[in-house]
Amino acid sequence: MPQRAYVDGQYLPTADAHVPVEDRGLQFADSLYEVAAVFNGQLLDWPDHLARLRRNCAVLFIPLPQSDAALTLIAKRLIAQSRAADAILYIQVTRGTARRDHVFAPGLRPRLIMTVRRFDFRQRAAQQKRGVSVITVPDQRWGRVDIKSTGLLANVMAKQDARAQGSFEAWFTAPDGTVREGGSTSAYIVKNGTLITHPLSAHILPGIARQTLLRLAREAQIPVEERPFSLGEALGADEALLTSTTAPILPVTRIDGHDIGEGRPGPVAARLIGLVADEIARQTGWR
Amino acid sequence: MPQRAYVDGQYLPTADAHVPVEDRGLQFADSLYEVAAVFNGQLLDWPDHLARLRRNCAVLFIPLPQSDAALTLIAKRLIAQSRAADAILYIQVTRGTARRDHVFAPGLRPRLIMTVRRFDFRQRAAQQKRGVSVITVPDQRWGRVDIKSTGLLANVMAKQDARAQGSFEAWFTAPDGTVREGGSTSAYIVKNGTLITHPLSAHILPGIARQTLLRLAREAQIPVEERPFSLGEALGADEALLTSTTAPILPVTRIDGHDIGEGRPGPVAARLIGLVADEIARQTGWR
Repeated sequence: MPQRAYVDGQYLPTADAHVPVEDRGLQFADSLYEVAAVFNGQLLDWPDHLARLRRNCAVLFIPLPQSDAALTLIAKRLIAQSRAADAILYIQVTRGTARRDHVFAPGLRPRLIMTVRRFDFRQRAAQQKRGVSVITVPDQRWGRVDIKSTGLLANVMAKQDARAQGSFEAWFTAPDGTVREGGSTSAYIVKNGTLITHPLSAHILPGIARQTLLRLAREAQIPVEERPFSLGEALGADEALLTSTTAPILPVTRIDGHDIGEGRPGPVAARLIGLVADEIARQTGWR
Repeated sequence: MPQRAYVDGQYLPTADAHVPVEDRGLQFADSLYEVAAVFNGQLLDWPDHLARLRRNCAVLFIPLPQSDAALTLIAKRLIAQSRAADAILYIQVTRGTARRDHVFAPGLRPRLIMTVRRFDFRQRAAQQKRGVSVITVPDQRWGRVDIKSTGLLANVMAKQDARAQGSFEAWFTAPDGTVREGGSTSAYIVKNGTLITHPLSAHILPGIARQTLLRLAREAQIPVEERPFSLGEALGADEALLTSTTAPILPVTRIDGHDIGEGRPGPVAARLIGLVADEIARQTGWR
């Protein structure tokens, strides 16, 4: 049973899990999501994902009925049922089902969906050694991408462009030429030993992997600057990298076809990859 | 059988119609929609809705398999099954079901969903006599709202704000202070007898009701200007109005709490309401 889902109180194979056509997640992207990594059957950074999900629900006035304990129980049961050691847990919370109307009636019952599928994090080893390339695209997303909503069509289009050009990711650039983040990853550069990334704002997602990386870097006395950086600055950086739940950390060696630094993973990236691996091992025993 | 749905080749009660949890419409708002009006069992402006849906599918590289004839057949069958004289037909096309990944694999089978529910257009008569109020909100939507995608959370939030303030609609304002359109309606002002509305661009939806209204106005020798107008200009206008499939045309008599003109529906709105009613009667016999 490699792919299991939970929806409306039922545990079932993902292929058999459905939602009504009038679910507001489907009709309005009126829904939120989380993606959590499972290593050795253990959830990574789980309290952070729960906290972000609950914060987002509050922003959108979605009264998620399940307690953290209940969410944890469901997640763990799904993971156990899937018999997957390494996996991706996907959580989606929609505002619920209602007669189609932009304005939502009070009292709707939010819908909780979870799915688990196996994921091979080992595939990343080669990418970590080699580095990946990114392209840049103008940021056409809405003004509140700090809310982790399922309105992801701009991200889909950007990442599709990247893949069509043989790149791993697309980095969104602001009208002022600064780099915000990737289609589903956080973006960083390294200059003179300092790790630089866009500060938290309405224009980037507060990534859990980002939060962890900045903490690990600071603990290791690697200087960190949270400030906007331009594409020009990125092209002239010593190194670049990206993080996400599924990455979880990858060196970026080319941007828009230009080599970054010497065009191969640099020493700061190597050190951060080690720190992230240690953190995963500390939390889950996985290595 | 007042509410009927079509999905994956099946006709059934809307409450029984479902989609898989891994439908990309649900997970990525990777889907498009149309809302068409049914008067006297007849679809209004149907060829225009079909053309827009097909244009949007092309933009997103969604290979909608159904021909126009097939879509028409399904729509008419649903309308007949619903036994509704006046109704709203909702169409949603998603990219299909796939293992969750922003990048979409080639060869996915798009999902066609249609629903029909009764709608009382007579309820609009009182609003047409009295006029409605709107508020303005900063436009936080993405940069391609000309694509009629289901990524509508910014619209939901704006319209929710409007409703909370006792207003019918929220008008989106650009950073430069111009008025773009409403959360689910097109926006117009009237000054010295000229009907003014935002030109087609990536920042407004090419509304079918808008297109019809501009055609009717021009045929009736009412001057039309398609150009951006500022909020200040709107507050100083003689009249204001809005259109949509479900409105279909309503005078706007208050903006952000300020009376427009004399704070009641004006003569140009009255004339346009008459023209729209004639057009609906011409196409469907409804009056």
